[in-house]
Amino acid sequence: MSKEAVLFWMPMWGGFHEAAWRADEAPFDPAMNLAEMRRMLRIAERGKFHACFLADTLSVGAEGADVPPALISRTAKGARWEPITLLAALSQSTDRIGLLATSSTTYNEPYHVARFFASLDHLSGGRAGWNVVTSGSNGESYNFGRDQHMDHTLRYERGQEFVDAVTRLWDSWEDDAVACDKASGMYFDPEKLHALDYLGEHLSVAGPLNMGRPPQGHPVIAQAGSSEVGRAFAARNADVIYTLQADLGKGKEFYAEVKEQVAENGRDPEHVKILPAFVCVVGRSQADADEKLAALDSLVDPVVGLDNLSKMLEHDLSDVPLDGPVPEIPEAQVGSKTRQRYFLDLARRDKLTVRQLMQVAARRGAFAGSAGSIADMIEEWVQADAADGMNVTFADATDSLDVFVDEVIPELQRRGIFHREYRGGTLREDLGIPRPANRFATTPRP
Amino acid sequence: MSKEAVLFWMPMWGGFHEAAWRADEAPFDPAMNLAEMRRMLRIAERGKFHACFLADTLSVGAEGADVPPALISRTAKGARWEPITLLAALSQSTDRIGLLATSSTTYNEPYHVARFFASLDHLSGGRAGWNVVTSGSNGESYNFGRDQHMDHTLRYERGQEFVDAVTRLWDSWEDDAVACDKASGMYFDPEKLHALDYLGEHLSVAGPLNMGRPPQGHPVIAQAGSSEVGRAFAARNADVIYTLQADLGKGKEFYAEVKEQVAENGRDPEHVKILPAFVCVVGRSQADADEKLAALDSLVDPVVGLDNLSKMLEHDLSDVPLDGPVPEIPEAQVGSKTRQRYFLDLARRDKLTVRQLMQVAARRGAFAGSAGSIADMIEEWVQADAADGMNVTFADATDSLDVFVDEVIPELQRRGIFHREYRGGTLREDLGIPRPANRFATTPRP
Repeated sequence: MSKEAVLFWMPMWGGFHEAAWRADEAPFDPAMNLAEMRRMLRIAERGKFHACFLADTLSVGAEGADVPPALISRTAKGARWEPITLLAALSQSTDRIGLLATSSTTYNEPYHVARFFASLDHLSGGRAGWNVVTSGSNGESYNFGRDQHMDHTLRYERGQEFVDAVTRLWDSWEDDAVACDKASGMYFDPEKLHALDYLGEHLSVAGPLNMGRPPQGHPVIAQAGSSEVGRAFAARNADVIYTLQADLGKGKEFYAEVKEQVAENGRDPEHVKILPAFVCVVGRSQADADEKLAALDSLVDPVVGLDNLSKMLEHDLSDVPLDGPVPEIPEAQVGSKTRQRYFLDLARRDKLTVRQLMQVAARRGAFAGSAGSIADMIEEWVQADAADGMNVTFADATDSLDVFVDEVIPELQRRGIFHREYRGGTLREDLGIPRPANRFATTPRP
Repeated sequence: MSKEAVLFWMPMWGGFHEAAWRADEAPFDPAMNLAEMRRMLRIAERGKFHACFLADTLSVGAEGADVPPALISRTAKGARWEPITLLAALSQSTDRIGLLATSSTTYNEPYHVARFFASLDHLSGGRAGWNVVTSGSNGESYNFGRDQHMDHTLRYERGQEFVDAVTRLWDSWEDDAVACDKASGMYFDPEKLHALDYLGEHLSVAGPLNMGRPPQGHPVIAQAGSSEVGRAFAARNADVIYTLQADLGKGKEFYAEVKEQVAENGRDPEHVKILPAFVCVVGRSQADADEKLAALDSLVDPVVGLDNLSKMLEHDLSDVPLDGPVPEIPEAQVGSKTRQRYFLDLARRDKLTVRQLMQVAARRGAFAGSAGSIADMIEEWVQADAADGMNVTFADATDSLDVFVDEVIPELQRRGIFHREYRGGTLREDLGIPRPANRFATTPRP
């Protein structure tokens, strides 16, 4: 039997492509448009995406105060919904799709985070997930009373303690603690309520949590680990690992390594799902997809586009004529030489102008395809053990999601590599990941 | 014209009376029953309550770790919803009623709190409110890595900085900052986005907030200030002041004093609403109300009830025969002599047994009445300038809310002292409190 793919949908405020909001058909203020977000989430649920995965940053713009407002003001990324409250609201207009929100371990308290995700899990009937991030930008640190962001190693040390405390808080109440026994007057069994008295190097929490155990036991934990430390953290803690992989070969390598690390942690590799990011533009045909991508190209703002290209090439291009040739550029010293070389070779080969190269860079790796070619790519990655599925994001803010649901998903179902129905009542059940036992429970469950 | 009353509804997990959950008609697990909470909120909205006001505590039981689990386990107060996520969810099944959640300034970060309430305001179309608390129990401090709770004065100092930072964060974006101008490529006007660079003694926040200005400008701010410091804090910051007042005389005194303090702060006293707590049991007739209260009396658990009475009398009664007379008790040394005297005099006068006195104490001041007598009381307080309205909570977990909406509210409307319709689109408009100007705006609004 072929391996079935897990598909997450990662909504990007106004489309992953910086210029997507400028399309005629894009809604007004897509970054904070509740009706549009609800509409899209319902489409994703109709398509039986396993979950919606909300990224987050605790500042204006991904790089916070480091990015000048004039630049951010030309993208739809400056303002956006707070993910936990947004998903709490949308949990009431959906029934089956999983709901993952990003929350930081560096600028939070475990008691709050445990509570928020327990609440989201209760509100949604067991569909909540927590994407654990450690927040690495200075822009974020300035919003939390710090001069600069916490050192990488310390962040992960604190992150581990944070996850340990949160998962213990989720176990505060045994599943059957609440009896609501009116006759005897026992609302809950005090033997089934547990303090944790967690005392770490970075934080301490007494507990117990003031909320019943989440329907899933523990909401699903997701993490994106790419550094050595991050990968070890993910292998130890995550149910779902989100990753960026440049090509199939690198994807297979990452997959094999991480699954091995998962096993070394005494965990079943089948119970940890690896989902690379997959950015796409979906067309009713290849020509339609190409046309959509070309439309996005044409909308790239020169200010944003040149800034982005300058970063890719590690060279300031703001004064170079847009419709002239790409100039000679000194070799990258700090960033990726490979990336610089890739763009420069492309410009030489296809004789691209600066504007054209800027447009290609603005695509941020988006794949434009018809249902067939997109299904091929997903099938290839999953069957080659480079992925357990994909975390799909759409470059445009118009109808790629619709076409994906109308055409790609039925194609995957025909090939027998995507579920035809949500199988369980909870996200864990849909993912085939077991519900964790309560570590404090002394009495066997009936 | 008579002054119109403002009515808030304060849901209490399983009823304000500790034994309310034990009534036959009370739902299972009323403290975490989403369907029941939604049902009640819709009834409150049908009655045109201005808002729903959710209390909160960051630990199991109001007194946290100080209360033995065996005691908490006999009440419905151990587990409960996290208020912000609950109201985010319920914002989607209601249209007009205001939604106030409690959030602590001691164990939080202003950036998160500003974001949560801005989000709730956006999700609800301008119905959000923040009940500011400074969290004074040790049980809470243990859940946030502290050995004991922060000193009262320091808590309020931090609280003031916290509110200053949050309200500035809400002003980060001018109201018309987002233009979404597809032609020019300007998503928002960078001149209309403002950092705050707030630097206090207790906290600092750079900003700007990564979310557009809330529909209300600032969500409504509520606060319960009873100490000297707390009262000054409320007079300076709150749009709504929640208070406990023993009788009409004390209520008038408090009202006059606080309104004066509000004016001393350069604020319009009309724009600050004082809402004393009003605990009641509502009957279709006085006999029906008395019967309901008697039913609650009969359900008082001896363990919980004696513990409560022991606190009121400042004397351990756990070994005293329940159906015998109330014994002689040494005069209170630490707590309130007046309260002790009140209960002892009552016991003497009415020849109450320990059980009977315990039942009276368990009522926690609940007033049992028919629509007429309850409307009288509300009218009396409001017209005497002891209140601008009431923060109503029901002792039982059955049908007092229903009867209040069916009978008390129409009676108040007949008397011309309660609105017949929600008047505005936002909570501020319904309360008659102006929308704050943006302190950073330099350009006059059109």
